[in-house]
Amino acid sequence: MREIVYEFDDILEQIQHTLATEDKQQFREIFFENHTYDQAQIYLSLTLEERKLAYQYLTPEEMAMVFELLEEDVEDVEEYLNEMDEAYASRMLAEMYSDNAVDVLKQVGEENVRTYLRLMPHKTASELRQLLNYEDETAGAMMTTEFIAVRESDTLKTAMATVKRFAEDAETIYYVYVTDDENHLTGILTLKDLIVKPDEKLVKDIMIDRVVTVHVNDAQEEVAQTIKDYDFLAIPVVDDTNTLVGIITVDDALDVIEEEATSDYSGLAGVNVDEAHQGVWAGIVNRLPGIMTLLIMGTVTAFLFRHYEPLIQQASIFAIFITLITGTAGNTGTQSLAVAIRKIGLHEEEQSFWKVLVQEGTTGLGIGLISGVVVFGIVSLWQGNLVLGGIIGFAMFASIFVAALTGTCIPFALEKFNFDPSIASGPFITTVNDLTTVLVYFTIVSQFISVYLAK
Amino acid sequence: MREIVYEFDDILEQIQHTLATEDKQQFREIFFENHTYDQAQIYLSLTLEERKLAYQYLTPEEMAMVFELLEEDVEDVEEYLNEMDEAYASRMLAEMYSDNAVDVLKQVGEENVRTYLRLMPHKTASELRQLLNYEDETAGAMMTTEFIAVRESDTLKTAMATVKRFAEDAETIYYVYVTDDENHLTGILTLKDLIVKPDEKLVKDIMIDRVVTVHVNDAQEEVAQTIKDYDFLAIPVVDDTNTLVGIITVDDALDVIEEEATSDYSGLAGVNVDEAHQGVWAGIVNRLPGIMTLLIMGTVTAFLFRHYEPLIQQASIFAIFITLITGTAGNTGTQSLAVAIRKIGLHEEEQSFWKVLVQEGTTGLGIGLISGVVVFGIVSLWQGNLVLGGIIGFAMFASIFVAALTGTCIPFALEKFNFDPSIASGPFITTVNDLTTVLVYFTIVSQFISVYLAK
Repeated sequence: MREIVYEFDDILEQIQHTLATEDKQQFREIFFENHTYDQAQIYLSLTLEERKLAYQYLTPEEMAMVFELLEEDVEDVEEYLNEMDEAYASRMLAEMYSDNAVDVLKQVGEENVRTYLRLMPHKTASELRQLLNYEDETAGAMMTTEFIAVRESDTLKTAMATVKRFAEDAETIYYVYVTDDENHLTGILTLKDLIVKPDEKLVKDIMIDRVVTVHVNDAQEEVAQTIKDYDFLAIPVVDDTNTLVGIITVDDALDVIEEEATSDYSGLAGVNVDEAHQGVWAGIVNRLPGIMTLLIMGTVTAFLFRHYEPLIQQASIFAIFITLITGTAGNTGTQSLAVAIRKIGLHEEEQSFWKVLVQEGTTGLGIGLISGVVVFGIVSLWQGNLVLGGIIGFAMFASIFVAALTGTCIPFALEKFNFDPSIASGPFITTVNDLTTVLVYFTIVSQFISVYLAK
Repeated sequence: MREIVYEFDDILEQIQHTLATEDKQQFREIFFENHTYDQAQIYLSLTLEERKLAYQYLTPEEMAMVFELLEEDVEDVEEYLNEMDEAYASRMLAEMYSDNAVDVLKQVGEENVRTYLRLMPHKTASELRQLLNYEDETAGAMMTTEFIAVRESDTLKTAMATVKRFAEDAETIYYVYVTDDENHLTGILTLKDLIVKPDEKLVKDIMIDRVVTVHVNDAQEEVAQTIKDYDFLAIPVVDDTNTLVGIITVDDALDVIEEEATSDYSGLAGVNVDEAHQGVWAGIVNRLPGIMTLLIMGTVTAFLFRHYEPLIQQASIFAIFITLITGTAGNTGTQSLAVAIRKIGLHEEEQSFWKVLVQEGTTGLGIGLISGVVVFGIVSLWQGNLVLGGIIGFAMFASIFVAALTGTCIPFALEKFNFDPSIASGPFITTVNDLTTVLVYFTIVSQFISVYLAK
């Protein structure tokens, strides 16, 4: 792919030259030699002055193609719209596929949205207005209304004519949707069938009538997962009455899967890993609330610890193993947390709380036992003291077991009370486990310290 | 989607009934009413006896369709193959798209692979043998060889005839590849253009000649990312001489993006989150090496701690804040780690080590300063001792700063020495930071303890 990078710089330079010399024809020639994605990259690399010329050289329809591929990557899309004159921006938005137009409009101030919609053809504006009403991260908010529909009673020849007529406007022509007089979805045709099967056949004899659909209110992860499972290029979206209201294409499923993955990863790390684009200060502001919460929790642990200070005064050796035990317990807790969040995310019925709890509890028991024995061995040999080894080993075992249970229970509890389970990050669990571990550790130490001191 | 779940149980019951009554015709009728993905789910829900009947009722070609959608989900695919007779399994594999057949063959013992390939048509076997040679997780290992190619000099009418002829065998007909006499890739046609543009036009006048390709040796993430960026349905794979050797379709890109996301997530958690399918014992065996490594590192920290035990004996109050400081530093380290791994994963040139180090270092400095001041305040008020507050606050600041640097440097160092940076998990960084924090903390305490004791 390296060659493409160099080539891109060359092309950008050529484009900038045509703009500097105000050579519209040459600009258009070079610009349209590129893939839309690369056109978008070129556009993003231009200066404000250059972009303003580009708006003169490209029609709103052509600019719409560029913006289709822009909206995912750009955070300040409103600034670009503000550079255009209102009529141009409005026509461009009207020309975009409705799902992408909605994504852009959602990033734009309310007043501007009203202006753009007012300047649009009435039908387009009312379609977009409807799409804007769907809740974020649902099928309704992802879908586009530009699909091709035919009737059961059409011949394949008629259906093919419909496909050709709407090919330029539809987001995909590779699936054709079959609806009845009231727009209820009754079947799907693939373009492949349309091409391969005899012209005179009827749509109803060829179509797939066991249609997999999603509901407008379904969560975007579910939609993406269904598209992925079935290897679909698009999936139809229906409302409560099975009326076909839109379709969602595979490229949107790809975006959702990546978006969800980044958000899960960020959740586990307790930091928005994409923050870096926003600079250091934004990074600090982003992380500070989390760090402060954990710091307060850490202080509570210190308060608890203070309560056990007399034990340390009696035998300072017990202070030495505290990081070993809190550390290992924290690690086990993080692992159980990750497994639990993953299980919750899979939405499989078999992944019930109790099943996961038993599984993680047993795993924690096993790892705790083995770690306890190993630590017992190390400490006994190192300190030449079996009682000390026994106390530390037992504390290690108990802390790991408790950590595995905590790591499993917390995300399920959050889910139960309708919080996003992924707000329980690794750092959060580690901090909770520091508290439980200090409690477990000193409870055990206080029980057995007399035996240790008596030796 | 809930309705579909119930419906599935009904269908499964019907299918099982047809098998129990050995009603082949009825079985086939019900089975083929389902989407391939659902056929695969039905197949997986059958008992061994039922599956053996299914092999009699379905041709290897029909079974191939089911296996296309099976290979991602099933871990013991070899067991299923072993149930079939060799000729049946071999014909089924030969009928599958080559990328999926290769995925299956990679999970099968060497001797079986040889048997299956021997029983196949010579051409198919040699194609599969070649694909099996590509390194895992490269474009070569992902691609399929079932694509449609036409010539520049063809008319669209001829090209369309080619599409129709190969439609049943090709993995996608929505892109048609243009090659010269030596199979060099010179352009791409979309099926949409083939349909919409006039029949008598020549391929070379319509085709897109600025083709985005991937190389057979490119990493699978790069391939998936390119497909995602360009919103492609498929991408051509070429070798060093620009010869078209295969294509990769968007459904494979989806699988890769999800696979990579799961592996990054697992890496950060320090546990394979999909292990649960394998039971408790496998889970313990999986996690134990990691936990043991961390336990050894934790023991080293305890050794170091032991060295500073006299300080604790002089003033046990210093033991109390250790979990607070190691905990907060560990959290900062995990966050920096996640950001660094993400940056490395993006493969962007601007995300150089130094840039990320400065960014994370500055962020760590900021968070460290604020946390240090807050802790200084809390401890001073709580203990009524400004010197103690100052020592703990300063130690907090220094530990957080060091943790941010460690968290950033370790993954970049791993990358530099050609290890996978994601082997540095959150638990690993936390454990490393426990060590550095204990060192930093007690160095500071030992410098200032005389001031504290003199008060």
